[in-house]
Amino acid sequence: MKDAAGGERLGGRRLYEGKVLALDLDEVEEPGGVRAMREVVRHSGSVAVLPVHEDGSITLVRQYRWPARALVWELPAGRRDAGETPEQGARRELVEEVGLEVERLEKIAEFWTTPGFCDEVMHLFRGSGLRAVPPRPEQDERIEARRFTLDQAMGAVARGEIREGKTLVALLLEARRVEGQPPEAS
Amino acid sequence: MKDAAGGERLGGRRLYEGKVLALDLDEVEEPGGVRAMREVVRHSGSVAVLPVHEDGSITLVRQYRWPARALVWELPAGRRDAGETPEQGARRELVEEVGLEVERLEKIAEFWTTPGFCDEVMHLFRGSGLRAVPPRPEQDERIEARRFTLDQAMGAVARGEIREGKTLVALLLEARRVEGQPPEAS
Repeated sequence: MKDAAGGERLGGRRLYEGKVLALDLDEVEEPGGVRAMREVVRHSGSVAVLPVHEDGSITLVRQYRWPARALVWELPAGRRDAGETPEQGARRELVEEVGLEVERLEKIAEFWTTPGFCDEVMHLFRGSGLRAVPPRPEQDERIEARRFTLDQAMGAVARGEIREGKTLVALLLEARRVEGQPPEAS
Repeated sequence: MKDAAGGERLGGRRLYEGKVLALDLDEVEEPGGVRAMREVVRHSGSVAVLPVHEDGSITLVRQYRWPARALVWELPAGRRDAGETPEQGARRELVEEVGLEVERLEKIAEFWTTPGFCDEVMHLFRGSGLRAVPPRPEQDERIEARRFTLDQAMGAVARGEIREGKTLVALLLEARRVEGQPPEAS
């Protein structure tokens, strides 16, 4: 069946079904009649939260990411569990990773992380009204949490020390919110 | 061999090797002694350019993305070809996709698109000093290019009409550059 944009799956097969992702090789007809084989990573979607404290400071986490082979500063985040709304997932990850319960969650962006070959959707929230509770990391997670002023975080962005997509989007949106912006013209 | 952060590959296997990506199942020891099996999508890296015209307007492209099953507004972008520097790739994609030659390329960000399960690095550039040449799209690409004022683009961001990671990062960085920012405190 064609999707709203006019694309259609003609055939293909699942190459791999794993714990975190699946991989499909799809034969598709895209709008305009282009026929192609497309490799697609299937992912259940992700949630991430920018936790903003009363004084405007924020909490980021640093953890080892095997694909990057580096310790990466990023937002508290994780995969959506089955049956969970993005909001529920965001609240859960914030408790697990940094021990923060959040009163208010505001959706600030929703985007594809890398739509050329992957269907992952990132649901990005701003969390405020924070309350400390004991964190409970998953067994295979080692997470360092640290609090930054927004200026410190934006300095780290400018120096290229924050190098992760969702985290850049969230910090830049927060800076825009705090620093103000000119009235929109069009 | 351990990497600089202390992670080490103990074993594993390649599950798939394709045209755009490969998939590995790695057995790893992460810093702190966590042993885990990790599914990792391997990718050669990507380049993207925000083309900024003399009057400050920018060019975005819209194309169908099968994983998203939607027409997606985004920066001119593509995979790094073998043996190509990110700069060379950025220049090539800009000619191919929108028919623009660029005089000045400035690196504005470098980030992992989704480092939990994928090693893709995005090299993000701002291009200026643009000159029109005939575009030459790849055979399986149907690309619509359109020019926007920055205000128009930021309006589309605010309304959730731009929903792609690298494009959000680039537009937010450009808005910050144009609208100014307070002197950095720390």
